[in-house]
Amino acid sequence: MIMIRSNIALIGLGVMGKSLTLNLLDQGFNVTGFDISELHRERAKLEGIQVSTSAENKGQLNIVESLEALLASLEQPRVIALSVPAGNIVDSVIDELLSAGLETDDIVIDTGNSLWTDTEARAQRYQGKLRFISTAVSGGEVGARTGPALMASGEQSAWQFVEPMWTAIAAKVDTSGTPVGQFEQGEPCAAYLGPAGAGHYVKMVHNGIEYADMQLICEAYHFMSVVLGMPANKIGQVFVKWNQGALNSYLMEISADILQTPDPVTNKPFVEIVLDKAGQKGTGLWTAVNSLQTGAPAPTIAQAVFARAQSSQKNTRLKGSALFQSQRPAHSGLDKDEIISQLHDALYCSKLSVYAQGFDLLKATSKMEGWQLDFTTIANIWRAGCIIRAAFLQDIATTYQTVPDIENLLFAQSFKTSLSQYSTGWRHSVANAALNGVPMPGISSALNYFDSLTSAVLPANLLQAQRDYFGSHTYSRINAPEEEKYHLTWNLEQRDQVKQ
Amino acid sequence: MIMIRSNIALIGLGVMGKSLTLNLLDQGFNVTGFDISELHRERAKLEGIQVSTSAENKGQLNIVESLEALLASLEQPRVIALSVPAGNIVDSVIDELLSAGLETDDIVIDTGNSLWTDTEARAQRYQGKLRFISTAVSGGEVGARTGPALMASGEQSAWQFVEPMWTAIAAKVDTSGTPVGQFEQGEPCAAYLGPAGAGHYVKMVHNGIEYADMQLICEAYHFMSVVLGMPANKIGQVFVKWNQGALNSYLMEISADILQTPDPVTNKPFVEIVLDKAGQKGTGLWTAVNSLQTGAPAPTIAQAVFARAQSSQKNTRLKGSALFQSQRPAHSGLDKDEIISQLHDALYCSKLSVYAQGFDLLKATSKMEGWQLDFTTIANIWRAGCIIRAAFLQDIATTYQTVPDIENLLFAQSFKTSLSQYSTGWRHSVANAALNGVPMPGISSALNYFDSLTSAVLPANLLQAQRDYFGSHTYSRINAPEEEKYHLTWNLEQRDQVKQ
Repeated sequence: MIMIRSNIALIGLGVMGKSLTLNLLDQGFNVTGFDISELHRERAKLEGIQVSTSAENKGQLNIVESLEALLASLEQPRVIALSVPAGNIVDSVIDELLSAGLETDDIVIDTGNSLWTDTEARAQRYQGKLRFISTAVSGGEVGARTGPALMASGEQSAWQFVEPMWTAIAAKVDTSGTPVGQFEQGEPCAAYLGPAGAGHYVKMVHNGIEYADMQLICEAYHFMSVVLGMPANKIGQVFVKWNQGALNSYLMEISADILQTPDPVTNKPFVEIVLDKAGQKGTGLWTAVNSLQTGAPAPTIAQAVFARAQSSQKNTRLKGSALFQSQRPAHSGLDKDEIISQLHDALYCSKLSVYAQGFDLLKATSKMEGWQLDFTTIANIWRAGCIIRAAFLQDIATTYQTVPDIENLLFAQSFKTSLSQYSTGWRHSVANAALNGVPMPGISSALNYFDSLTSAVLPANLLQAQRDYFGSHTYSRINAPEEEKYHLTWNLEQRDQVKQ
Repeated sequence: MIMIRSNIALIGLGVMGKSLTLNLLDQGFNVTGFDISELHRERAKLEGIQVSTSAENKGQLNIVESLEALLASLEQPRVIALSVPAGNIVDSVIDELLSAGLETDDIVIDTGNSLWTDTEARAQRYQGKLRFISTAVSGGEVGARTGPALMASGEQSAWQFVEPMWTAIAAKVDTSGTPVGQFEQGEPCAAYLGPAGAGHYVKMVHNGIEYADMQLICEAYHFMSVVLGMPANKIGQVFVKWNQGALNSYLMEISADILQTPDPVTNKPFVEIVLDKAGQKGTGLWTAVNSLQTGAPAPTIAQAVFARAQSSQKNTRLKGSALFQSQRPAHSGLDKDEIISQLHDALYCSKLSVYAQGFDLLKATSKMEGWQLDFTTIANIWRAGCIIRAAFLQDIATTYQTVPDIENLLFAQSFKTSLSQYSTGWRHSVANAALNGVPMPGISSALNYFDSLTSAVLPANLLQAQRDYFGSHTYSRINAPEEEKYHLTWNLEQRDQVKQ
């Protein structure tokens, strides 16, 4: 028996780790797999065999039962990808690998959903002990299995070494930016984005955008359901149509599919038997918190997180609904086709607004951290594999390629034209939601972001005056240099301005 | 010369510390003052003398130049209030006091704007070394000088010892809940709120509400200014009128005053020469972050923080305004009196929504931390002295006294009646803002909070189905116990439900 050394090892064979393993085997790489759970090991072994018998040039899977065996099974330098839960467990596994004989030239890749600041800390911690990179993986189980979007960062020499494997397993797009099949040729959705932390940060913002995108689609569905009284499958048909146009995206596609799916138990529309309490795993929350902390406003992402929180207060909502039933505004005089057309426009503009918020946040943090993120590359690798993949990421990529330092995505000529075409429908959707008592927190906040962004004057002058009044926080004058601060002697009858 | 020992010492004689010192002297307490800045010491000495000569039974001020002298000057147990910047400096000063001879029975009070979790950590750290309490002070400079709202928490025996001093200097209200003068009798706005951290937490949420309250007023002003073209002093007159009714509050009062104040330099309306970029010191941000993290949604507080962030992007806004000028909707066909009346109603309902969010956040954290916060007491001590003092805090206090465990503030009968009266104007204001291209992020999000809170069904069913589709995150069924989780085999033609 000839011992074949593996190209890479996967530690953690849960849903994501196993899928990445099978994807690597598909692409002809030999993989060593390890998991502390025997069940996971056995399951991977079984599925790995199935994969390896289905075609000629598949890689070979070697499931091992110890980290020592894992290290011994690998080519040098060793490449070890971790697919373990975010948090301390990442450090524990790396420390155990070091004890088991990991060498300074070996490469460890964190593919989990780690908080980007943890990744930065790890890069520091393992400096000189091993080569550490991270690769955030987007696309869920199916993505990991057949082609995810891969956002890498950290030690550059390590990235160069793993790049051939990562580009092989990544999702791919053709020259028009359209996703292609797993075994087809195309431009891979995998890239090195910058120093440690950058990749996980970009993935975090991706997830924040994803939260908002999902919320926006839900709001359009809700309005059609509640105000127009449309059944789920009819709304699904509207989504099918929308998915063929400017709104083409994976999330639109699966929403259309969901709405047309019957419940296997009752045969009613599936969506109507699902409890309306949304869960969350935290990356949207991290993005919203980060946006508050950096001061690069992403209000619609925050609203999406709050919307999930409000959904989870179901018992309170039931009481509130009963209490205020008689006060609910009546729905009348609405033209169905017009409303649907307005919702389409609202959804498109709101998505644009959300992406503008997300990219503005990326820009702010890139500047603060000195990462020099390439927004064209980011938009490019989001075109396939990941959850927010959408036709219009091609337009975003083109925008950043043409005007790399554009102040805000919404200022691009093509988006300005779209906004001109669609903003009336956006405004009417928000107005109708308010008048009809149907919540639309995401779409409303997206419009408010746009209207604030395009307001030369905002009422922060009154706000700053209030702050000076009660807290002596000072103000700047419009007709003096901004760094000159003044205070008004509010407590006196004769008010004087005092330069600070 | 007879040595008079002081009742209390103040460390830090900046704006707030000096004001508290003078307030204590006014109330007949002898105070020792210390500051590392000679300027601050001299200024306090001067103003302290002025105070002590203005009336008979004023306390005596003793400015010292070392912590040893400070300790020696105090009655035992010693009471030392810190008015120093939040952060590490609080610990440094306490550590120096311990080195200088502070004893276990002595009391240290942090009166700064510390983060509540820091206060919790300090209570642990100094346990057994001294008696540590915190007292958050609201009301700005004038409040501290003539009567602030005081939110205390920490070691209960220490609170009992300082209570007579704190209730003496606090703001006071008469039996109808109306603020009274500094030397008049009344119910003091000072209270012990719970274990360490509770007081600073309550103050943090107070500030979050304050951020939102300010933003809402600004949005009403902005709409009148931009859409109705009203000059500042006319808007000020509207605010004067509003301040006589349901909207009566300190922030409304000072906004009316500001809008009617001319700029001392140009004689134009003052507000129009103030640069529209709002600053912030972080407590509103802390509240928004905390709301995201606890899952008790306070979206309007977050929107207020984002609105400040968007205001600060002035250069970008100027570009955006120029670019989109031609697309701005025209303002026409609006009846001025009707619009003003609708804005009044919108402001009232939005304030209610914000207070409901704030108290819901207090409730959630109180439960999580085991604090057993008393919401009647909190509403009571916010009736005077603090920045958000308003007539309707009396209504909130009454509500919590009558129904202490009310699910949400908006469900109270009196507020339900107000909402019924005012919600049409609220809805029209939000609709008009959207249609006229005038941002109203706070008022919109307040309405969306209300409409979500009173929706028996939200579209989180579609959202949870999306999560199950791409990430196998499972769902609950409306016709099965919520803890039973299911997954649909989305990737197969024949879809089956699998119980997890």
